[in-house]
Amino acid sequence: MKILIEKVTPTEIEKRSMDIISNELKKLNITLDKEQLPVIKRVIHTSADFDYANNMYFSDNVIPKAIELLKNGTCIVTDTKMAQSGINKKAAKKLGIKIYNFMSDNDIADYAAKNNTTRSAACMDKAATLKEPLIFAIGNAPTALIRLYELYKDKIFKPELIIGVPVGFVNVIQAKELIMQTDIPCIIANGRKGGSNIAAAICNALMYEIVFKKNVEI
Amino acid sequence: MKILIEKVTPTEIEKRSMDIISNELKKLNITLDKEQLPVIKRVIHTSADFDYANNMYFSDNVIPKAIELLKNGTCIVTDTKMAQSGINKKAAKKLGIKIYNFMSDNDIADYAAKNNTTRSAACMDKAATLKEPLIFAIGNAPTALIRLYELYKDKIFKPELIIGVPVGFVNVIQAKELIMQTDIPCIIANGRKGGSNIAAAICNALMYEIVFKKNVEI
Repeated sequence: MKILIEKVTPTEIEKRSMDIISNELKKLNITLDKEQLPVIKRVIHTSADFDYANNMYFSDNVIPKAIELLKNGTCIVTDTKMAQSGINKKAAKKLGIKIYNFMSDNDIADYAAKNNTTRSAACMDKAATLKEPLIFAIGNAPTALIRLYELYKDKIFKPELIIGVPVGFVNVIQAKELIMQTDIPCIIANGRKGGSNIAAAICNALMYEIVFKKNVEI
Repeated sequence: MKILIEKVTPTEIEKRSMDIISNELKKLNITLDKEQLPVIKRVIHTSADFDYANNMYFSDNVIPKAIELLKNGTCIVTDTKMAQSGINKKAAKKLGIKIYNFMSDNDIADYAAKNNTTRSAACMDKAATLKEPLIFAIGNAPTALIRLYELYKDKIFKPELIIGVPVGFVNVIQAKELIMQTDIPCIIANGRKGGSNIAAAICNALMYEIVFKKNVEI
């Protein structure tokens, strides 16, 4: 069998992929909100899973809020090293955004054991002690979302934005519903689906709206 | 609305998630090969996407081969930092496996520019110069798979195993088909789907078969 590989540059691949996604959305008769479209398309781009055209939840006016936060260099906390790895470092640097992940910090395992909680939840407690506004990108641990909800409910800490896309089969849907009940600006993948790659893709899509479309070079 | 969060430990969550996946596979009337099952279940666990029950390709006898390689401490090369991040470091360390990723190495960008290729392909050329048997876990770049195919075809280098699960819309299906045409042992996600998370999940599933089931403590 002869397999034909097309000669294309990475930039062309990106453009062509996005065109294919747009065409398939059209075929599926899915019309998406113009502001939300770059986020949803990048999530589909990173997963090749068109379910995300139907399962993404955006709180009121969250896209301009998120873009404003990122423009102002609001730092991002992830629940996994994998999500941290997936966020575009050049774009983040250009915007003055640091990407925090505390999972392998020495104090986290001790804190989790002492407080009978998960390391992911312990990381949220640590983030809450930072004296700065924060965006959370949670792609793996429902316990991280649940802890953020508790910190909010107890008026200890309120995130500026939660990207809440943990994946899984136990407590995942519930954890997402908890966050959607709050007035915290949020972007959520309804249902079981999500992942560290999805969390990173959403952060990247939002940053690209600033650095590429507003002609900030990276 | 009252949302009920179940009190479960991470170990219980893992077990219960795998039970849910087994039950859903049963409901879908999908019976999987016993050797392949732990890999497919972990891929579904990491994506909540049951398409992987139908789209995974395993070359003949690849599971025992892969397990033998990992038992012998065969090192893994990934195409992204994200896949590298997602591979369980404790399990890898226990087996004496190093996880290589060359994407941010100083020589890679220069080499790619000079050879008019992608950084991902350049990383494969760099891996081919290592004097050791290697497993490749490719979750993102079809150009990495294509380069591995060229190195094989030109008799320059042959991987011990390819986990070939790049995701995307351009050259992805073709790149996977190229690898499936060779006699290189491989695990492939047919079609567009895959990702760095999927590549890492497959590596982890295979390592867990050794470290957990064979009672090697990590």
